[in-house]
Amino acid sequence: MKIDILTVFPEMCEDFLSRSIIGRARQRRLVDISCIDIRDFSADKHRKTDDTPYGGGMGMVMTAQPIYDAYRACAKDDKPYVVYMSPKGRVFNQNIAVDLSKKEHIVFLCGHYEGVDQRVLDEICDDEISIGDYVLTGGEIAATVVTDAVCRLLPGVLASEECYVEESHFNGLLEYPQYTHPYEWNGVKVPDVLISGHHEKIAKWRREKSLEITAKRRPDMLKNLNLSKEDKQYLEKIKTQEEHKE
Amino acid sequence: MKIDILTVFPEMCEDFLSRSIIGRARQRRLVDISCIDIRDFSADKHRKTDDTPYGGGMGMVMTAQPIYDAYRACAKDDKPYVVYMSPKGRVFNQNIAVDLSKKEHIVFLCGHYEGVDQRVLDEICDDEISIGDYVLTGGEIAATVVTDAVCRLLPGVLASEECYVEESHFNGLLEYPQYTHPYEWNGVKVPDVLISGHHEKIAKWRREKSLEITAKRRPDMLKNLNLSKEDKQYLEKIKTQEEHKE
Repeated sequence: MKIDILTVFPEMCEDFLSRSIIGRARQRRLVDISCIDIRDFSADKHRKTDDTPYGGGMGMVMTAQPIYDAYRACAKDDKPYVVYMSPKGRVFNQNIAVDLSKKEHIVFLCGHYEGVDQRVLDEICDDEISIGDYVLTGGEIAATVVTDAVCRLLPGVLASEECYVEESHFNGLLEYPQYTHPYEWNGVKVPDVLISGHHEKIAKWRREKSLEITAKRRPDMLKNLNLSKEDKQYLEKIKTQEEHKE
Repeated sequence: MKIDILTVFPEMCEDFLSRSIIGRARQRRLVDISCIDIRDFSADKHRKTDDTPYGGGMGMVMTAQPIYDAYRACAKDDKPYVVYMSPKGRVFNQNIAVDLSKKEHIVFLCGHYEGVDQRVLDEICDDEISIGDYVLTGGEIAATVVTDAVCRLLPGVLASEECYVEESHFNGLLEYPQYTHPYEWNGVKVPDVLISGHHEKIAKWRREKSLEITAKRRPDMLKNLNLSKEDKQYLEKIKTQEEHKE
């Protein structure tokens, strides 16, 4: 997979994506990521990439020309899938990450300032994505988040395919609590079941804890799941217990 | 405000938060951000910070001791507000960003691998936050996102207080399309109203475009708003138009 990130702060994405798991994946050529400076494509002698908005208002708007020319340089050999990172976009989630991980070539356009001239967005963008309902200083960190979530799904990037099977947002439940050595820390022991060696009981305890934490924190996630009869019975049971407490 | 980020990859956060708007805010001492290596607090001679999970399963779990000692080093002079960045947390949004921006001292704990020993989370954490319904390679980028969203709200960080008044997630609507010079680009002209000089008409057009794009992309956001009579009439009008198209 090839990913081009169009930005006026290429170092911000480059720094982050050179380290840890994604850095290693790039070294092993599992993914080809380029952070491209939009300023390099500005026809302006001062490498300007923004101007005042038509109709007035605060802030600056990114101009069409440098973005369009940077995009054309990326799209020489193929038609990449172009994603504009913006607070106006559809909200990113794991399903979108899976879809994007199947593309051959993605271009992320990072917005900054008060936005981007709508005409170039209309001309080149296939998608507009927001990473959540909050305001960031720019699109660089958002593009980095999406790149990270997509690249870790590519074959070979994680140590084993199994690494992500049990994670939240894959099986639809939040993860159960984890414990590691020592057995007793700060006066608190590891729950008995986890040292029982009884695999079935451990699996049951973990499933129940996942159901419990999801019901408590993210009841919205339960709605979309095909829960087993046992799952439903357990949820009923903790609900009754909660009601007794009140 | 003081922010401490506890992580096993301090450079990942440090790189990003040294640049652009947040980098300048740190230089101007508007915010004091430290990225602290949890490994420096490991009692293990190999600076180990993780171990196998009790009860079996893939991956490694971060051990309690180094995290607890790193936390205690941050909490010498006050009781910071401790946030664990994890997929299990409540979903970050602009209201949470505003709340966090009022804290004096925040410690972000970045999870990695399969999670963190639950006992240290129970002992030190005040809050657990997820930046969205997707899986990342680690908590570093999530902590960076929250730090960015929080710091830009601190007094003096943005060039003017007004910068964020019109943004999405502040007034509850997605932003209207923006246009800048040149007047004609790639055969497309700027909408007439924006060059009319008629401020009232421009404001009305922008409001309507915001309503339109929000209704289309994020109808869920409209529910929580106090819309004016004019807003509601306009939404009715475009709804009728849509129905005619079908």
